[in-house]
Amino acid sequence: MLDHKTLEQCIEHCRVTQKRPYDPKEHAGDWLPETPKGKNGRAELKDQAEELLAESRQRLAEAQELLWSDDRHALLVVLQGMDAAGKDGIVKHVMSEVNPLGCEVTSFKAPSPEELDHDFLWRCVRHLPERGRIGIFNRSYYEEVLVVRVHPGYLKGQKLPDEPKGEALWAERYESIRNFERHLTANGTVVRKFFLNVTLEEQRKRLLERIEEPKKFWKFNPGDAAERAYWTQYQEAFTRALNETSTEAAPWYVIPADHKWFARTLVAHILAEAIDALKLQWPKPDPEDRKAMAEVKKALLQEG
Amino acid sequence: MLDHKTLEQCIEHCRVTQKRPYDPKEHAGDWLPETPKGKNGRAELKDQAEELLAESRQRLAEAQELLWSDDRHALLVVLQGMDAAGKDGIVKHVMSEVNPLGCEVTSFKAPSPEELDHDFLWRCVRHLPERGRIGIFNRSYYEEVLVVRVHPGYLKGQKLPDEPKGEALWAERYESIRNFERHLTANGTVVRKFFLNVTLEEQRKRLLERIEEPKKFWKFNPGDAAERAYWTQYQEAFTRALNETSTEAAPWYVIPADHKWFARTLVAHILAEAIDALKLQWPKPDPEDRKAMAEVKKALLQEG
Repeated sequence: MLDHKTLEQCIEHCRVTQKRPYDPKEHAGDWLPETPKGKNGRAELKDQAEELLAESRQRLAEAQELLWSDDRHALLVVLQGMDAAGKDGIVKHVMSEVNPLGCEVTSFKAPSPEELDHDFLWRCVRHLPERGRIGIFNRSYYEEVLVVRVHPGYLKGQKLPDEPKGEALWAERYESIRNFERHLTANGTVVRKFFLNVTLEEQRKRLLERIEEPKKFWKFNPGDAAERAYWTQYQEAFTRALNETSTEAAPWYVIPADHKWFARTLVAHILAEAIDALKLQWPKPDPEDRKAMAEVKKALLQEG
Repeated sequence: MLDHKTLEQCIEHCRVTQKRPYDPKEHAGDWLPETPKGKNGRAELKDQAEELLAESRQRLAEAQELLWSDDRHALLVVLQGMDAAGKDGIVKHVMSEVNPLGCEVTSFKAPSPEELDHDFLWRCVRHLPERGRIGIFNRSYYEEVLVVRVHPGYLKGQKLPDEPKGEALWAERYESIRNFERHLTANGTVVRKFFLNVTLEEQRKRLLERIEEPKKFWKFNPGDAAERAYWTQYQEAFTRALNETSTEAAPWYVIPADHKWFARTLVAHILAEAIDALKLQWPKPDPEDRKAMAEVKKALLQEG
């Protein structure tokens, strides 16, 4: 059964806190809330989810207009997950009603030589959303403590100073990230982070689809399947990263991602709530503005 | 008397530490080391300083080449000071022998609308020096706790969230700056910060020169003189900012700036030392490279 109340309980369950850290054993990728009884139970749940998704999408579109008119805050959305976890789909299905003027998606691939010539946050800072806008990072600076942690050989190409090394290096990076997000938050950017948590088996199906379905082939990349061999190491890297960097102001949510419709419903609701929590008001004209408006109105009416 | 040893003692005196915080009463803008006796004492001191400056300039040029070839570290130089304190002159006279390829100066003026749409560090992050280069910030993100602290009315234009306010806002900014510089340092950028400390009387003379000397008129800006009325407030803002943000890794130096030749000698020496402290080595070819080099050498010789 999925209504507002159960949805919010699910979201609480997904949120990573000090009291409830992320643990792969407790957060299954195929998790669903209690399914209504009867042979159509699953279909019923899905219908309920899609109704809620439609509602959140609408709320999000309105919230974004308010964000734009208020012009003091931005929303930064960080999406992370294994290949085929559904990151692109989240962007498409959650943001579909938001005015593209107020929303920018940045997908981070392998860093360029210019980017490697800077600290690891630099390339993401350049794409931070401006006040009034939603910025979506499809992958992000978190890759620096995920893929780079799983394949520390990448560090060689980063031309880092000799110290820190090993565990101290990762600790330094977690701290940089915490401080960076704290700075953003203090300066008006709301930060929400999502780990799209897909199971190994569901990823297998999705990668097979990319090979077999002509319309999905363009997404196929042999490297994605190769990364499956490092599944356990990725799980460890995600566990460390999420637990080290989930804060009150910039929380991580572990989104069960095997059922796309459920993942999208969760993310859309969390984002709509995040903007609503700012309690923004439509800007009101001050007396000076009112006077100018009255004069312009008069002139416009006289033209007629 | 100014030799290597006394110069280093002067530098220790200028460095802001927890034990020796910046105090305007203790750091006079017209301070000079002990002047040799006799009627030409001052001229002698100046000659000694200029000899040391020439030496540091040469060292700095060589150090920058090493920085460039090593390609893992950058040097960020932050210059702050009241108008006419000599910031432009420092750049010109200290960096004159450095290859311009390896050095970039960014002068920060009033922020643009695009810049105001981001957090206060953003516009400076975009101009951070790349690995291998020296970046000079002529004014910087420190303006956000200096001119903005003296004229808090500027905050209105920054479209900040409602909180934090007052003292909590400045504390938050000092912390953002400390964390930012810590992140840069950990990722290979050496940070050195200079407050060019000119006296009120010396500034008066320099501003008058800008009015009276035809070759200096282009530097004249009526706003500079107006800021003199806020001298005490600026002293307070500098005192807070320097003491809150001078760290082991990113220290502030209070440079007595009434005597330009002395200020330049101090800054040049500090920068040359900062790069030398990295103990960089010219990159050596590895066996693979040596093999390739031997083959190319052979081919080149056969051409002859």
